[in-house]
Amino acid sequence: MSQKILAINAGSSSLKFKLYDMPEEVVLVSGLVDRISHEDAIFTYKIGGHSDKHETTQPVKDHTAAVQLVIDALLGSGLIQDKSEIVGVGHRVSHGGRYYTQSVEINDDVAEKIDELSVLSPLHNPVNLLGIQAFEKLLPDAKEVAVFDTSFHSTMPRKAFMYALPYKYYTEDGVRRYGFHGQSHQYIYSEATRLVGEQATSKLISCHLGNGASICAIKDGKSVNTSMGFTPLAGLVMGTRSGDVDPEILPFLEEEHHLSSEDVRSMLNHDSGLKGLSDVSNDVRDVLDAESQGNDRAKLALEVYVHQIQEYIGSYTTDLEGLTTLVFTAGVGEHSAPIRQRVCERLGYLGVKIDDAKNQANEIEIQADDSRVKVMVIPTDEELIIARDTQKIVG
Amino acid sequence: MSQKILAINAGSSSLKFKLYDMPEEVVLVSGLVDRISHEDAIFTYKIGGHSDKHETTQPVKDHTAAVQLVIDALLGSGLIQDKSEIVGVGHRVSHGGRYYTQSVEINDDVAEKIDELSVLSPLHNPVNLLGIQAFEKLLPDAKEVAVFDTSFHSTMPRKAFMYALPYKYYTEDGVRRYGFHGQSHQYIYSEATRLVGEQATSKLISCHLGNGASICAIKDGKSVNTSMGFTPLAGLVMGTRSGDVDPEILPFLEEEHHLSSEDVRSMLNHDSGLKGLSDVSNDVRDVLDAESQGNDRAKLALEVYVHQIQEYIGSYTTDLEGLTTLVFTAGVGEHSAPIRQRVCERLGYLGVKIDDAKNQANEIEIQADDSRVKVMVIPTDEELIIARDTQKIVG
Repeated sequence: MSQKILAINAGSSSLKFKLYDMPEEVVLVSGLVDRISHEDAIFTYKIGGHSDKHETTQPVKDHTAAVQLVIDALLGSGLIQDKSEIVGVGHRVSHGGRYYTQSVEINDDVAEKIDELSVLSPLHNPVNLLGIQAFEKLLPDAKEVAVFDTSFHSTMPRKAFMYALPYKYYTEDGVRRYGFHGQSHQYIYSEATRLVGEQATSKLISCHLGNGASICAIKDGKSVNTSMGFTPLAGLVMGTRSGDVDPEILPFLEEEHHLSSEDVRSMLNHDSGLKGLSDVSNDVRDVLDAESQGNDRAKLALEVYVHQIQEYIGSYTTDLEGLTTLVFTAGVGEHSAPIRQRVCERLGYLGVKIDDAKNQANEIEIQADDSRVKVMVIPTDEELIIARDTQKIVG
Repeated sequence: MSQKILAINAGSSSLKFKLYDMPEEVVLVSGLVDRISHEDAIFTYKIGGHSDKHETTQPVKDHTAAVQLVIDALLGSGLIQDKSEIVGVGHRVSHGGRYYTQSVEINDDVAEKIDELSVLSPLHNPVNLLGIQAFEKLLPDAKEVAVFDTSFHSTMPRKAFMYALPYKYYTEDGVRRYGFHGQSHQYIYSEATRLVGEQATSKLISCHLGNGASICAIKDGKSVNTSMGFTPLAGLVMGTRSGDVDPEILPFLEEEHHLSSEDVRSMLNHDSGLKGLSDVSNDVRDVLDAESQGNDRAKLALEVYVHQIQEYIGSYTTDLEGLTTLVFTAGVGEHSAPIRQRVCERLGYLGVKIDDAKNQANEIEIQADDSRVKVMVIPTDEELIIARDTQKIVG
């Protein structure tokens, strides 16, 4: 018998949702409440299979009010007759720390731990918790499940997750590489394997290139290394995030410019990356446009961006001892043929060769016929992983 | 006609020297004044070709007194009749910043710039300058030459040396990747090419693994990427240095433990690396010993160490689009067969295969007969690069 499952991604002022019929994985409705806590919050949703979008503007006081809005719409549309039909609500939760290596049904203890882990993810865990509390209140009969960004990476070996810091910072403070975008990398592995088989995906590198970006080395379905670290700042150049830099740069800039460590931290998160290098935009499309108009700083930003992606791919081939499938996903990965083309340009030595026409057309498989490595473009679907895990726990 | 050239490496309390007959590259004498500014400073030197070491203990007030001691020993040994025979003194200088892409004769302007660059290399440039000033005073007729750690890396493309930070920190503060150990990596390329030819060294990765450690990707003799960055903290795990870590860890630890940024900086430089992870030692030999006695933290430290070396090698194969020669050098690289063996273990997919017996014997070429990549063990010789560059400038 099919079950209705909600997948939730709560941000500080937004609530994204998808209602699934499981295990058929049919999306009944998907939508977004944006500008929560504003007088002119915007609620949009789309009934599965229909192309028209419903959009309304109204005051939405808080996350609870946003959830009420969603439930009313589900009832109003006739997709559910009673809210008790929703048997499970899966929540994307940023940080599971060392506690959660897989998804878990939320109870008081779990909620407390998510709260405790806010110290590791101050921007996300607290708002994820707001979403959880709102649903607890309004859908008290549904099971709530936490699906962590970090848990897919819990299979990383210690050689990949330990920093070379005094050991006590690991045991006492939990300082280690955790990795993020786990739902996305997990989905990519699962979907690539469905499409080309597990032989071909035994040594897979997943490039999640969005405004946030991370790369994951996946060996036989298990994450063995990933570029984000203790926090989502680390790893690749992103829209506004620096990715890895020489740590000495932080105290150097503090001293030279009389900045606080909080100032520097904010600069690394919000004023760096493609935006900081190019002074054009945090959006790859804008930077590509500027480059095509002769903007050299845009060209520089893209050179650094592509180079770092290549460096991680090269690096992760040692974790995998080779490469069988390379996947591009998320905003840039799914839609930017020029970025994919530039990244693959130097990977011929690994057996990577793309077909320009297939790449331009955003086909699912874009490798050339004589490529030893499959190169794929797969739209990510983090919500589906949330729905699947939730259904497994709801039982 | 042959010329006598001194190569100098001045530390805060030490002065290393080698006297060469150039261009024959014959070492006439090599030695060290240690514990400068102590009552019991130790002066050791060895005449080239002889195995016996001279050692004396005496008070040495400062670097000038150390240089006087060296000159007196050269005269006393009869290797020079008059100090005017030394026509050039080459100094290792840590940081040439954006000013110096090659070695340069030192004049007032150069000395000023080296001083100015102390902000980028506070531990080394000032003491390098002390050595320079001592020789200026005591060997006024010799030409003095600065040979920078950074200049070999000046061929790096901007995609490799730019950090994804706000651009003004590059233009106004010179924040970029510089790289260090330049003399060593340059020597390794030159010596490997002498031994196996420039076809085989067209795509070379040089692993300088000592107490400090860096890896360099060299394409046709030019550095195209290197693991140390703005400072020598960055890149690989080292004896006591962390190498790269998620930058967010710095403000996190400051806040959690009420540390100043200077405290954290000191921890990253002096209490991290192999020592911090293992709590055994900063010396790979000690850590290997502890591991063989069942110490799991030692095992962990070595796992992380080897893994990071592998990651850089993998990463740099994308810069080189393949790999023809892999070289190990410096203390660990030259002497530790187990480390070399572990590093190469996962590189079979690149065509790397070592011969265990040759590796155990520290032979110059340790690849197996059917290895597609040459794997070499070459003792580094930074002083020779200093002597060569100095002679070129002395003319």
